Amino acid sequence: MCQSPLELDYLGPFPILRDQFMGLWALDVPSPLHDPANVVSLGEGNTPCLPLENIGNALGLASIFGKLEFQSPTGSFKDRGTTVLISALKELGITQVVEDSSGNAGASLAAYAAKAGIVSHIFVPASAPSAKIQQIMVYGAQIHLVDGTRDAATKAGIAYAKNHGLCIASHNMSPYYIEGTKTIAYEIVQQMKGSLPKHIVMPVGNGSLLIGAWKGFRELQSRGVISTIPQLHAIQSEAVKPIVAAFAGETWAPSEQAKTIAGGITVGQPPRLNQCLNAISHSKGQAVAVTDDRIRTWQLALAQREGIYAEPTSAAAFAGVEMLIGQGHIGSRDTVLVPITGMGLKDPVTA
Amino acid sequence: MCQSPLELDYLGPFPILRDQFMGLWALDVPSPLHDPANVVSLGEGNTPCLPLENIGNALGLASIFGKLEFQSPTGSFKDRGTTVLISALKELGITQVVEDSSGNAGASLAAYAAKAGIVSHIFVPASAPSAKIQQIMVYGAQIHLVDGTRDAATKAGIAYAKNHGLCIASHNMSPYYIEGTKTIAYEIVQQMKGSLPKHIVMPVGNGSLLIGAWKGFRELQSRGVISTIPQLHAIQSEAVKPIVAAFAGETWAPSEQAKTIAGGITVGQPPRLNQCLNAISHSKGQAVAVTDDRIRTWQLALAQREGIYAEPTSAAAFAGVEMLIGQGHIGSRDTVLVPITGMGLKDPVTA
Repeated sequence: MCQSPLELDYLGPFPILRDQFMGLWALDVPSPLHDPANVVSLGEGNTPCLPLENIGNALGLASIFGKLEFQSPTGSFKDRGTTVLISALKELGITQVVEDSSGNAGASLAAYAAKAGIVSHIFVPASAPSAKIQQIMVYGAQIHLVDGTRDAATKAGIAYAKNHGLCIASHNMSPYYIEGTKTIAYEIVQQMKGSLPKHIVMPVGNGSLLIGAWKGFRELQSRGVISTIPQLHAIQSEAVKPIVAAFAGETWAPSEQAKTIAGGITVGQPPRLNQCLNAISHSKGQAVAVTDDRIRTWQLALAQREGIYAEPTSAAAFAGVEMLIGQGHIGSRDTVLVPITGMGLKDPVTA
Repeated sequence: MCQSPLELDYLGPFPILRDQFMGLWALDVPSPLHDPANVVSLGEGNTPCLPLENIGNALGLASIFGKLEFQSPTGSFKDRGTTVLISALKELGITQVVEDSSGNAGASLAAYAAKAGIVSHIFVPASAPSAKIQQIMVYGAQIHLVDGTRDAATKAGIAYAKNHGLCIASHNMSPYYIEGTKTIAYEIVQQMKGSLPKHIVMPVGNGSLLIGAWKGFRELQSRGVISTIPQLHAIQSEAVKPIVAAFAGETWAPSEQAKTIAGGITVGQPPRLNQCLNAISHSKGQAVAVTDDRIRTWQLALAQREGIYAEPTSAAAFAGVEMLIGQGHIGSRDTVLVPITGMGLKDPVTA
């Protein structure tokens, strides 16, 4: 797609590695690697798909499932993308990488780089939760704290990479990352055993999960495994909503002052904006923005009704489900699935 | 066994629930429940078994695996026991429970109780990591912070339950808990496909994982699924080592002053001490104590060489592997498996 970062396409038959591996590497998905010896895995993928009856009752929904992405090696869905990205970079012989992150992608990259013996430089807003910053440091990454917005961390990372002649291992730009996140679609199809959810509702910052899910479902449709694709809905915060605004045809500009508790989706200028809009509109989804107040309410509801401690970014999706029901986009008999993207321990509730 | 808490035994054929469930409830294990509708699951079990080549090289071991128990709903292996315990209590119609914990079992119980609609009272040492205390509170549990040792929290919990006529849902005492933790043996047999590790090395406080693993392997042996049982080794900290001392035939008494960074195994008076000794000696294992210094070294080595951020309690097992190699109990060609019991985010490294 023009004016967007790259996507991968497979020109020939690539190896399917399933027999030698577990988790997402065991799926029936072509691998972008030439040599399975380069797979850098920490046991990612194969996350549970859990019925959330109590939340369903609260929302008046017959059926809602949580896909527990926080049960991942570093506590967030980012590990799906990172395992493929770092494996590909290892295959290319890369020894040092630069990444920018609100925290979760940085922690994920730091972990997989450590396993692969690759030195990582992670650029993070100085305002990121201390649990995430500590986690990145424990993995032995070189951390660079950047004052200002999330976007300032991106710019600083790019400048550093250029100055030092290093590889940018960006979860927002690399096509390999999407090759990893797309595996969520394969897992959902496998786990829901042919009765796919009508709606998938997810928090969207850079949109790597949204774009990955769309790519995965399209592949499965073109292979004849599924006939229809779930509606993919994007949830953002009221404070930072470039995708919601663009979807509605409104103008919106990032602001230095904009703050939200949903740190994982405070991305003012997502490089894959057009691909996000494409996934939403072609899947007949919606894009809506929610308030911090509703995000916190749903974070506590998830913990206290379902025993799931998610970070605020993940809870935003449930505030979004509530809004989409109110707007009539989700009906009470529809089946809904929400990827619960990050663990609450990464961005703890403070008393 | 005399003078020990109860274990369950099956008198008749109980239902195997596997077709309706995922994770550990999908295993070929008899269920202690009468009605599958009472299963309270958060997607526990089915944790990855990951080869740790870099740690293996550092230790001079041909083959060492980590069983990633921290990839659990609440971030620790306790969820295996809690899912069975809370399901059984739900079947019995219990509406309020009391538990004491160093933090992880309390967080696990709080989460499953929330899902089941059961009110939980959790007694925790006031010195527990704040991340664990916050986690327990987010799930909506009534938290009771107790000054003094881990054992003081146990006494306070028992007294509270007696005074209020409430059910004690103790992970150290309930036979249902062991019915859950034993599933780790079933998973290891399934994942290692017949080539079982010679050694399993685990941190031991109350010993629910050790006793569970022993029970599971014995069941599998008596069913003819396996012929030999791995050697089960128990690792404690130098500061708190009742099981190590008893195994060596030495006298040891708990001390109020004893401190270790391995908070999950600071149990001075484990109620299942005899069952722990039985599992170790009958499996031909060892019990050794390690220093905080080695624990921290291995916590960082795990993160920086394998990309695994474990809490100190979990890292203690690797310090134990190192010691058992030094003592000649583990040979360089032996296969070793270490359950990595809890996530580092629960007890963060501070700079």
